[in-house]
Amino acid sequence: MCGIVGYIGGEQAAPVLLEGLSKLEYRGYDSAGVAVYNESGMHVVKSKGRLAVLEGILDKGEKLPGTVGIGHTRWATHGAPSDVNSHPQVSDGGLFAVVHNGIIENYMQLKEHLMRRGVEFVSDTDTEVVAQMLEHYYRGDVLAAIRQVTQRVEGSYALGIICADCPEKVFAVRKDSPLIVGLSEGQNFIASDVTAILAHTREIVRLRDREIAVLTREGAEFYDEELEPLEKPAETIEWDVAAAEKGGYEHFMMKEICEQPEALLKTISPRIKNGRIVLDDLKLTRADIEKISRVYIVACGTSYHVGAVAKYAFEKLLRMPIETDVASEFRYRDPILDDKTLVIIISQSGETADTLAALREARRQGARTLAIVNVVGSTIANEADDVLYTWAGPEIAVASTKAYSTQLAVIYLIALYMARELGTLTEQELEEYTKALEKLPELAEAALSGRETIQYFASQYFNAKDMYFIGRNVDYAASLEASLKLKEISYIHSEAYTGGELKHGPISLIEEGTLVIALCTCGRLFGKMAANIREVKARGAVVLGLCTEEFAGEMKGVADWQFCVPKVPDFMLPSMSILPLQLFAYYVASMKGCDIDKPRNLAKSVTVE
Amino acid sequence: MCGIVGYIGGEQAAPVLLEGLSKLEYRGYDSAGVAVYNESGMHVVKSKGRLAVLEGILDKGEKLPGTVGIGHTRWATHGAPSDVNSHPQVSDGGLFAVVHNGIIENYMQLKEHLMRRGVEFVSDTDTEVVAQMLEHYYRGDVLAAIRQVTQRVEGSYALGIICADCPEKVFAVRKDSPLIVGLSEGQNFIASDVTAILAHTREIVRLRDREIAVLTREGAEFYDEELEPLEKPAETIEWDVAAAEKGGYEHFMMKEICEQPEALLKTISPRIKNGRIVLDDLKLTRADIEKISRVYIVACGTSYHVGAVAKYAFEKLLRMPIETDVASEFRYRDPILDDKTLVIIISQSGETADTLAALREARRQGARTLAIVNVVGSTIANEADDVLYTWAGPEIAVASTKAYSTQLAVIYLIALYMARELGTLTEQELEEYTKALEKLPELAEAALSGRETIQYFASQYFNAKDMYFIGRNVDYAASLEASLKLKEISYIHSEAYTGGELKHGPISLIEEGTLVIALCTCGRLFGKMAANIREVKARGAVVLGLCTEEFAGEMKGVADWQFCVPKVPDFMLPSMSILPLQLFAYYVASMKGCDIDKPRNLAKSVTVE
Repeated sequence: MCGIVGYIGGEQAAPVLLEGLSKLEYRGYDSAGVAVYNESGMHVVKSKGRLAVLEGILDKGEKLPGTVGIGHTRWATHGAPSDVNSHPQVSDGGLFAVVHNGIIENYMQLKEHLMRRGVEFVSDTDTEVVAQMLEHYYRGDVLAAIRQVTQRVEGSYALGIICADCPEKVFAVRKDSPLIVGLSEGQNFIASDVTAILAHTREIVRLRDREIAVLTREGAEFYDEELEPLEKPAETIEWDVAAAEKGGYEHFMMKEICEQPEALLKTISPRIKNGRIVLDDLKLTRADIEKISRVYIVACGTSYHVGAVAKYAFEKLLRMPIETDVASEFRYRDPILDDKTLVIIISQSGETADTLAALREARRQGARTLAIVNVVGSTIANEADDVLYTWAGPEIAVASTKAYSTQLAVIYLIALYMARELGTLTEQELEEYTKALEKLPELAEAALSGRETIQYFASQYFNAKDMYFIGRNVDYAASLEASLKLKEISYIHSEAYTGGELKHGPISLIEEGTLVIALCTCGRLFGKMAANIREVKARGAVVLGLCTEEFAGEMKGVADWQFCVPKVPDFMLPSMSILPLQLFAYYVASMKGCDIDKPRNLAKSVTVE
Repeated sequence: MCGIVGYIGGEQAAPVLLEGLSKLEYRGYDSAGVAVYNESGMHVVKSKGRLAVLEGILDKGEKLPGTVGIGHTRWATHGAPSDVNSHPQVSDGGLFAVVHNGIIENYMQLKEHLMRRGVEFVSDTDTEVVAQMLEHYYRGDVLAAIRQVTQRVEGSYALGIICADCPEKVFAVRKDSPLIVGLSEGQNFIASDVTAILAHTREIVRLRDREIAVLTREGAEFYDEELEPLEKPAETIEWDVAAAEKGGYEHFMMKEICEQPEALLKTISPRIKNGRIVLDDLKLTRADIEKISRVYIVACGTSYHVGAVAKYAFEKLLRMPIETDVASEFRYRDPILDDKTLVIIISQSGETADTLAALREARRQGARTLAIVNVVGSTIANEADDVLYTWAGPEIAVASTKAYSTQLAVIYLIALYMARELGTLTEQELEEYTKALEKLPELAEAALSGRETIQYFASQYFNAKDMYFIGRNVDYAASLEASLKLKEISYIHSEAYTGGELKHGPISLIEEGTLVIALCTCGRLFGKMAANIREVKARGAVVLGLCTEEFAGEMKGVADWQFCVPKVPDFMLPSMSILPLQLFAYYVASMKGCDIDKPRNLAKSVTVE
């Protein structure tokens, strides 16, 4: 996690850096800091807490003169959030200031090595070792020093560097953490993400692993790890700045919840032509598909929950064994992979470190890979054999909503596409499901329309300490995501269980008044779920039953509260049921006064393992 | 769940029934009741709450004369625990009294049918409908009335019935819920489980589905569902009565935790001869094993967590894809099964309703089935193609401990046995692992020896509202079980997460002082887990690190507390790490003053879906 920015140009650097960091706060907000070089030397100002604290200290940057600098917003990994552990980290002699996103895995060895040579360390961070090494190896050539450092460090990094000895340049290098260079007239930028510099330029260059950039006011030069010069053409970003703003909503999360029908439309409709699924961007041929004997779906967090739904969809539509795995587990379990295996990788940012590592492992073992990603040009998108984009636009709130919905839509598209190629569905089924998929954006609108009911319900229970979600089959998969949403932003300890497993242990936690949300959209299992609702009610639970309209009458006699969503084919039901439950999590967090878009301890794009 | 007993003989019935029920309380303890027939007619006494309440009312049974009766201890499914919903349920005219274990699924339709005919109902139970139907269809022949009822009800039942018109008989019938008949000199019994009658007789007859038993003082007659007489020979129970008593421990759970080394020895040692695994009881031939292309492991609750470990063991030893599934989900997901599929079914009681249903579904689809069961002669043991028993002896505490450990041992035995048949391990590996397995009982003794450290640690944190367990790979599988143990008996909301997934959401729940238990026994992942520990510590968590002795030094610098277990091959590690965590759950629950052997809302043998 962490976000970094850098500036060199004709304007005062500090305000530009702070403004850039404000767009990167979704990457971490444990502390923030800037280093600026001016006539009186190198100046570092940093502080624990939100960016707003630093903005206060610097009067939005006005107080700090100078036109060259770097900045950082931190998500703590090594060392607790504190002033001294904040970035930039500065070398012992004050020559180098460094901002860093990533983890230096061998920092303890490197640190001990330098300490034995008399270097004094002040922080607990892995980053300080980079600043110290730069100074230690510096013999008048910053690039040579950077090369010495990158040859010695293990782990992941995106680094922004300034040197008091060379104050007319900003240096950057990266490996396994994202970094872009922004180019403009008389001023240039580095940043973890384009949103940080979109107000200044749309011309960017993406650094690849181990590439080094050297920025001056006039331009940028690029080098490979052997310091050979590189030609790197710029690309133009098409994103709308307004799309990255809140547009009237109180929080990005609510904006993104409400954008789901539109995001679904953008993701689905260009890929259905004349009732037929067309995936022009897919290189996977029918022969490739016929060869596949096994599918893994690998992801983290919310994207992993997409995988949980995908297992049902693929197994139903393709009658092929599917395994969904958490990316951080996948790699270390020695999975059984070969060229008959398709590995589907899901990541909103395309930079999730665990997921990227799993992708690389799958490729190393010769599996075919297909990525579902939201950010065009991201590392995962670049490295997978195939990529299908979710056209959800930028997702800013830390708690993912529209990425989940559009990732699900892409899963349905792939499953139906493969089913057609393999002939595992009848023409009639294929037509029915494709039609249902086309209708999904419209039905999502309907599912979101009962907002006031959900808000009222939230107002009755937002003080709960614990909540439980239960469901069977696809409803269980949706429960996992509903529970995670609530956890992430409301800090209520909620947990999802399959309806049948409650009585094998967790039912002991049910007390008088405990809230249980029962997802019962899967009609053929309604009776079984009704029995599970009765079990928890017999122990005093209060139950909200979520079902499709056709079961509204039956639900009345079973649950205390109810909410209905439109009916869709079974495997698509989570696309409906999650919508009121995203709203529920939002309203609960809002009533509790939580910082919805930036929940404590969390960051948007998890670029450490 | 629920437990039923019945008696007819020369002694006073009520004390015998109450004593029998006391052995069945592990099956449910929401309420208890008895019905006894004596000179003044049919008498029903029942009460909400523990059996002790009823024993008080009846002065341990002395107050209620009569030598024929039935009794019940309830785990509520339909209708809250209350006096009126307690069993026995009596028909409108007072002719029939019924005790029932199971669920009548179509009871609403049947109830409405009778109500339209003027029958008055007093309870919310599904059971009352059975009593009412018996009276409704009774024309002077109880057996004929029973047949009318069993032809009409859907669902599961073990029924004990007495009729005021026919007071010299006790009737019993069952389907999908366990029921045995006990035979003795001048007195006869029915019961859900042999422990209830072991003080009186060791001669028993097991009823099969839809079979009817008619008990008199002199003997028992059996009939099939068409009322044709059956010959059913008795069998003799070998169990030791003492083994079903607490033997000096304060709770069955602690006794059973401490019995694990011995239970492991009994389960493992007869199956290793001259360093070679011998599974004489297995009908599965090498040719059968070579045919297997896919393995499913299906179970509920704690046994499901055995399956989670088994996935790692099988995939490592056999390089074969394994899927572990919750039994209640397995059936409804339309699993891909054929005669090349092996389905391993795990159940302590051998009567778990969800698991039994999954077994039947697997057999129906032609899969090969193998059951791991603790109770000899149980339904699952009878119906599976193969059965391997865990020789753990009776497990009385509701929270399973020695069943988990011995089920794991049987999993290792099967995996090693199959690996040898398939040649997927070298001779050297096979020898090494088999030796390690033989040593497991001794190492378990060592892992349990640091009890005081765990007790002290529990004393520091027993007041926590929430706890988290983290682990990777097999350590994650063990975390699931450790978390469930704590939930079941201490009512602390704990949850298990993979080390890598925390930062993708749940880390938002970590506050200053939150307790996190990190399982780090898997040496090759120690570094990754250490990073995860640092992440939660940076958010204020207090961490107990569990590792093998070789990492004790490194753990000191990472976690706040630590506990070491002996090193064993990776796939067997959960057999070590679970032991201190069972103790931890026990001590926490004990310090909180919880009813350890009979946690609220839970029952031992879950014979409803």
